[in-house]
This record gives sequence, structure tokens and C-alpha cells, in this order.
Amino acid sequence: MTTTPRLDDAALDAIFRTARTYNHYLDRPVSDDDLKAVWELMKWGPTSANQLPARLVWVRTPEGKEKLATCASDTNADKIRAAPAAVIVGMDTEFHDQLPWLFPHADAKSWFTGNAELRQASAFRNSSLQGAYLIVAARALGLDVGPMSGFDAGSVDKVFFADTPAVHANFIATIGHGDPASLHDRLPRPGFETFNTLA
Amino acid sequence: MTTTPRLDDAALDAIFRTARTYNHYLDRPVSDDDLKAVWELMKWGPTSANQLPARLVWVRTPEGKEKLATCASDTNADKIRAAPAAVIVGMDTEFHDQLPWLFPHADAKSWFTGNAELRQASAFRNSSLQGAYLIVAARALGLDVGPMSGFDAGSVDKVFFADTPAVHANFIATIGHGDPASLHDRLPRPGFETFNTLA
Repeated sequence: MTTTPRLDDAALDAIFRTARTYNHYLDRPVSDDDLKAVWELMKWGPTSANQLPARLVWVRTPEGKEKLATCASDTNADKIRAAPAAVIVGMDTEFHDQLPWLFPHADAKSWFTGNAELRQASAFRNSSLQGAYLIVAARALGLDVGPMSGFDAGSVDKVFFADTPAVHANFIATIGHGDPASLHDRLPRPGFETFNTLA
Repeated sequence: MTTTPRLDDAALDAIFRTARTYNHYLDRPVSDDDLKAVWELMKWGPTSANQLPARLVWVRTPEGKEKLATCASDTNADKIRAAPAAVIVGMDTEFHDQLPWLFPHADAKSWFTGNAELRQASAFRNSSLQGAYLIVAARALGLDVGPMSGFDAGSVDKVFFADTPAVHANFIATIGHGDPASLHDRLPRPGFETFNTLA
């Protein structure tokens, strides 16, 4: 009598087992509605005390992609220019200002007030969780993603988050319908024994 | 001609839309094979340069749960003792030692050698991604989880990672088959406009 049914093999393949990080995409558009649907799905993933610290910039105009490309390494810049869309996963280090309505049954804001170090760690951890939810949600909706950390976070902050100085770039990703021809061999994933223990 | 099919509504519900963080679980066991299956699924989620920095301790003996409970806040300690299983998501800040076999086509280890700050940030970001993959993978396999950050990370490091001083606890989670009677009202998740912009 579990409340959670097991997904079928095709679904497990689509979100994890055969899903791949794409370098290049098919010539097929991604609409604003497609991008909004990713948020509407990923937003349900849990964060500590419902912090939801991720601040997302969905980049799909040629001007936006060019601006983001100038903040990235050469290889990644070309991938961003050629992708149907990209997203910047930012994190708000003053997320606690939103907690009175996001976590209304306790004074959660006070847990973080005056503790910049705790806010930084919480924003980094939980916006990373949300970034992973984004990757899985996009795949679950039939999109493919190419997450990357090869970019200058300070430049992205200056170009995209100038009006919100408490928001900092965590990582970025391209989005589209992946071109299987752009895939290389898959990198190894070890069995349970290598990185896991039982206690 | 996408390579990634869209999941059906029941699957989207199970991993995101109706999935919940559980405080208490039904009296139904979770086997070692169930836990190993979570790793075998989550391991396919992408990490930067295939770092795979997460080091996981799956806690399912009464002794192990008691040891973990002593590192947690009072409320969380009770949840851990009562749960069928729990997991510690640790992160290896010397993950770069594994890159020669995890990312064999470049000298990725040298990118991190001598740069403890970059290793710390990379291990934290990517082990958090893996923690989110763990949450989604467990749900996809019919399990439920209760992630928590209310614990003393230094104590967990001392009790569970004494032999691997470069590994530090990131967050922990209980695992089982969720008891719907233990659920409270769901916390708010805003629409696209609140935390997202288009560029």
C-alpha cells in the first residue's frame, strides 16, 4: 500500500538511464511555454524550509544568448549561441526575506537574519537541488539539457543580476531537443560498492 | 523527432507534482536491494566533468540510526529512529583523485590540484545535484523521502566519516513508504513570474 507508484522502464530511461548531456541540438524550437512548463514542474521539488532560493533567467533571444556567451568559455560560448535556449540558475542569498510567505507556520526568516554564512550555504545547496530538479523536469517533459560550469560567474552576475546584487550565478545549462549525432561515448558510472557504504 | 519522450501525468505526479516530503512512514520494510536500486538509478544524473563527488552512507540498522539520531536535532532524531532507513549524502572534497578514470579523456585532475576553494565549491554543488537525483530516483522507484538539514554536520563527519577526513556531510534524508496521515498542508509554490525572468 505505498502511496508512490514505481515508474515504468521507459520513464526511468528518459529521466536517468539513457538521458544524456547534449552538446548540440536539433533545429527545432523551444517555446516560452515549454520553458514555463519546466518551472511549473521543478517548483514542486523539496527545498529546506521551502526556501526556493533559485532565481532563473531563461535566455532565448539572440541578444540574450550573445550576452551569456560572452561570459562563457570559448567552447561553451559556441554551444550557447547554437542552442535553442539556455537558463541561468542563480541563487538569492537573501532568500530569507521571502520565508514569511513561503514557510508561514514558523518565524523561519529569523533563523537566517544576521548569518550571511548560513544563508550562502543554504542558498548554494538548495539552488543546486533546484538545478537538478530543472534537469530532470526538462527531461521528463521531452526536452534535453546541457548543464555547464565553465563560465565566469562574476560576469554573469554583472550582466544579468545587476539589479539584484544578492543574486549570484550558480550554474548554467543549454536547453533544446538533443542531437544524438553530437554525443560521445558515455562516461563511467561505478556500481554501488565504489562510493556507497551500508550502516 | 525528439530523442526524449514526455512522461505521462501519473509519472510527473509521482516524481514532482503530488510527491511530498514525509515525516513518518508506514510499517513496511525497505531492503538493501531497494537502496542499491536508488544508487543504480541516480548515478546516471549528470555532474560537472563526471565528478560524482557524493559519498553515500545508507543507514538501516538500529545501531546506525541511533548513531545518526544523536547528530540530529530532537525532532529529526525521532524521525530518523522511526524511519525504515536513512541516508547521509556526504561529499568528497578530494574527488579529483578519481577523475583519471571518471573523466579519462582530459587531465581533469590537474584543474583542481592545489585549489581547495574550487574543490569545495564543486563538491558542494555537484553532491547537492546528486542529492536531488537521489530524491527523484527514490520516488521514481516507489519510495518516499524526507530530506533534512537540521543536524550537526561536524558530528556526522566524526561518527561516519572519521576514516575519510576529506568527506563531509552535505545533507541527510529518511527513506521509506510515506504515511499519508503524517502530511501537513502543502507549502506554497509560486507561478513563473515570481522567481523567473525571460531574456
